[in-house]
Amino acid sequence: IELAIDGGDNPDSIATLTSDPLAGVAVNYTGERHDLDEVRLLSPVIPRSKVIGVGKNYADHAAEMGGEVPEAPLLFFKPNTSVIGPNETIIRPAGVTDLQYEGELAVVIGRICKQVPVERVPDVIFGYTIGNDVTARDWQRTDGQWARAKGSDTFLPLGPWINTHLTLDEAGKLEIETRLGDDVRQHGSTSQMVRGVAELVSYITQSITLLPGDVILTGTPAGVGPMEPGDEVHVSVTGLGTLSNPVADE
Amino acid sequence: IELAIDGGDNPDSIATLTSDPLAGVAVNYTGERHDLDEVRLLSPVIPRSKVIGVGKNYADHAAEMGGEVPEAPLLFFKPNTSVIGPNETIIRPAGVTDLQYEGELAVVIGRICKQVPVERVPDVIFGYTIGNDVTARDWQRTDGQWARAKGSDTFLPLGPWINTHLTLDEAGKLEIETRLGDDVRQHGSTSQMVRGVAELVSYITQSITLLPGDVILTGTPAGVGPMEPGDEVHVSVTGLGTLSNPVADE
Repeated sequence: IELAIDGGDNPDSIATLTSDPLAGVAVNYTGERHDLDEVRLLSPVIPRSKVIGVGKNYADHAAEMGGEVPEAPLLFFKPNTSVIGPNETIIRPAGVTDLQYEGELAVVIGRICKQVPVERVPDVIFGYTIGNDVTARDWQRTDGQWARAKGSDTFLPLGPWINTHLTLDEAGKLEIETRLGDDVRQHGSTSQMVRGVAELVSYITQSITLLPGDVILTGTPAGVGPMEPGDEVHVSVTGLGTLSNPVADE
Repeated sequence: IELAIDGGDNPDSIATLTSDPLAGVAVNYTGERHDLDEVRLLSPVIPRSKVIGVGKNYADHAAEMGGEVPEAPLLFFKPNTSVIGPNETIIRPAGVTDLQYEGELAVVIGRICKQVPVERVPDVIFGYTIGNDVTARDWQRTDGQWARAKGSDTFLPLGPWINTHLTLDEAGKLEIETRLGDDVRQHGSTSQMVRGVAELVSYITQSITLLPGDVILTGTPAGVGPMEPGDEVHVSVTGLGTLSNPVADE
């Protein structure tokens, strides 16, 4: 069964499935269908193990952060407790004064894998979604390690769905746009990544095993900036829809 | 049922349980018992969410690393894919030349919790075990963020068991000793921690939710140093036994 075509044929509704496509068992349609405006979408995946972020993977963003592109991919973890879904509220913790959005292409892993050669990376990818790598920039500056700055609760909106039928080549040519309210703040293309998806997955898995449902955040283009309580942030990626989240104080 | 007393009455054997004590359901003995030398112990916990490490939490270790104690706890994540059990092999990845041990007291969380006041921390602790916060010191120096240096596969031996009947006060007065082969390399006391367990859990949970099975590594005393393939590393903590692991090249 080709689940992927359903979205194209029925853009305003969802079909329910008999099981979790990431669980490695046969999946079919239940026959149930709901209009999108009748349901509340949750994060399309809660990683059972980890989210790995990649810092400074767009040259224009590395430059605006006052640094150069790192010699090797700059990796950091976000825990599954930081994940929220579409339209859920990003919470600015007490003490944070500079909470920023970072719109990104997110890769969802489909198979347990390690030391994946670049040419085998398509075999381990389940699909693609949108991530907002929310960052407490003030904590990032003072903490040294980014656990609190990037790993706090609600700091990883994911969704609205997972696109499972993109080729690696297609994933490398998507437009990313982040809007704060109506203002476009980030506009880039995944073609501007310093290291593409295949290189990142291969590099990470040299020493780290990935599990089905693990997520790789591939970095953000230039234009990062602060969000204030009352704002709504929207990240759109070609073919992946729009991930919208309001911002509130704790 | 008081499971905790079993170990004291039967130090050379294990009793099997009807369920996972971290799952929040009633647990009893099955009646089965095995001698310790007939079984292979696995890690006593695989976190469903995260391990949070605390850097430079002993002043003598901060000094040997050429730095001072940080103003706030220095937090970093290790993923559940880095966890191994007693006697499992620590693998030195290709390209790593300086793989080091860090013997630590590990706290296992028992309840979902957030913003825990210091005086309520005992309520959210399931128990204590030993952790070896294995670190690729060369990657730690070059990578900036410590994901690869501390989060690679096999970089977190945990065990051999979880002690569920220590008070916070008792946990703050345990001796830690790390031996490489027969040589004592680290010898300290948890009383030397810059921030104790209650302060760490309270600080972390200000912005990060902890789940049952999450693990906090409380930092390592002075004496860290390299392990070579063929070595065996042993971390002992008063009342928690000894966690032993051999080291091998990939």
